Amino acid sequence: MNETRSGCPINLTLETLGDRWSLIVIRDIIFGDRRHFRDLLAHSEEGIASNILADRLKRLVARDVLTRAADPSHRQKAIYSLTEAGIALLPLLVAMGAWGRRYLPATPELAIRQRLMEEGGPALVQDFMAELRHRHLGHSLPSGHVDVLARLTAAYRATTG
Amino acid sequence: MNETRSGCPINLTLETLGDRWSLIVIRDIIFGDRRHFRDLLAHSEEGIASNILADRLKRLVARDVLTRAADPSHRQKAIYSLTEAGIALLPLLVAMGAWGRRYLPATPELAIRQRLMEEGGPALVQDFMAELRHRHLGHSLPSGHVDVLARLTAAYRATTG
Repeated sequence: MNETRSGCPINLTLETLGDRWSLIVIRDIIFGDRRHFRDLLAHSEEGIASNILADRLKRLVARDVLTRAADPSHRQKAIYSLTEAGIALLPLLVAMGAWGRRYLPATPELAIRQRLMEEGGPALVQDFMAELRHRHLGHSLPSGHVDVLARLTAAYRATTG
Repeated sequence: MNETRSGCPINLTLETLGDRWSLIVIRDIIFGDRRHFRDLLAHSEEGIASNILADRLKRLVARDVLTRAADPSHRQKAIYSLTEAGIALLPLLVAMGAWGRRYLPATPELAIRQRLMEEGGPALVQDFMAELRHRHLGHSLPSGHVDVLARLTAAYRATTG
């Protein structure tokens, strides 16, 4: 880590994440299950620029929020995985989405996953984090786990028709 | 609100807040009870620049996160107050601080208030929000309310000697 302006935990988080694009990338990895550069670029709802995406991915790897590895199933492609710290950003993203859904003009189809996360409360956040540990870190799933991302994605697809 | 890149609630929150300085200012208003420009500038742990502070205050007022009024007790001074939307940023700040405290090298004296907020859980967050509504919006306090900011400030002062 470079020099920081203060050791306040809120400031350190803001400095580590940098600008808003870092959290947008983490959001797309978590809720869109996008693990490759081209996927993150092509499906970006906000139209992230290629050079910004490359820079933020590099920064997040340097900050131990993501890891980057060769993808055995795709020649010449790198796959990005969340670290435990990256997975632990989920509650922060949910808090951010809750505020946006309540106070800003969110589009219904883009707010549906957020609504389900809020309705599920802390238990659903924990379930989703366990699932992300399975997907990104190779941990085994708790017994009886019901796929959270599949439920969120189905609800999203239902609103977009 | 200007044109936004998408109606995703997370993106809208990030676009509304802008860069990290906005949340630093909100943090200082909430946890430092700083309501005047000079206070926010002089006591900034991160050394915010005067022009950046002025710009972020203006932006937060335009976004209905803060209001600005003449302070009857100080001639020529404006006082800033949180709106309900501004007060509702507290859970987001706590989620941010929790992540920083866990994964980044936070300084103990700057992390103590965050630790107390986490230990108090959602009930303490709600108590603090009620207190902020009292302080900033003139609402009456719930009966039996114990001053949250005083407790946090006392703990902070105890660690800084």
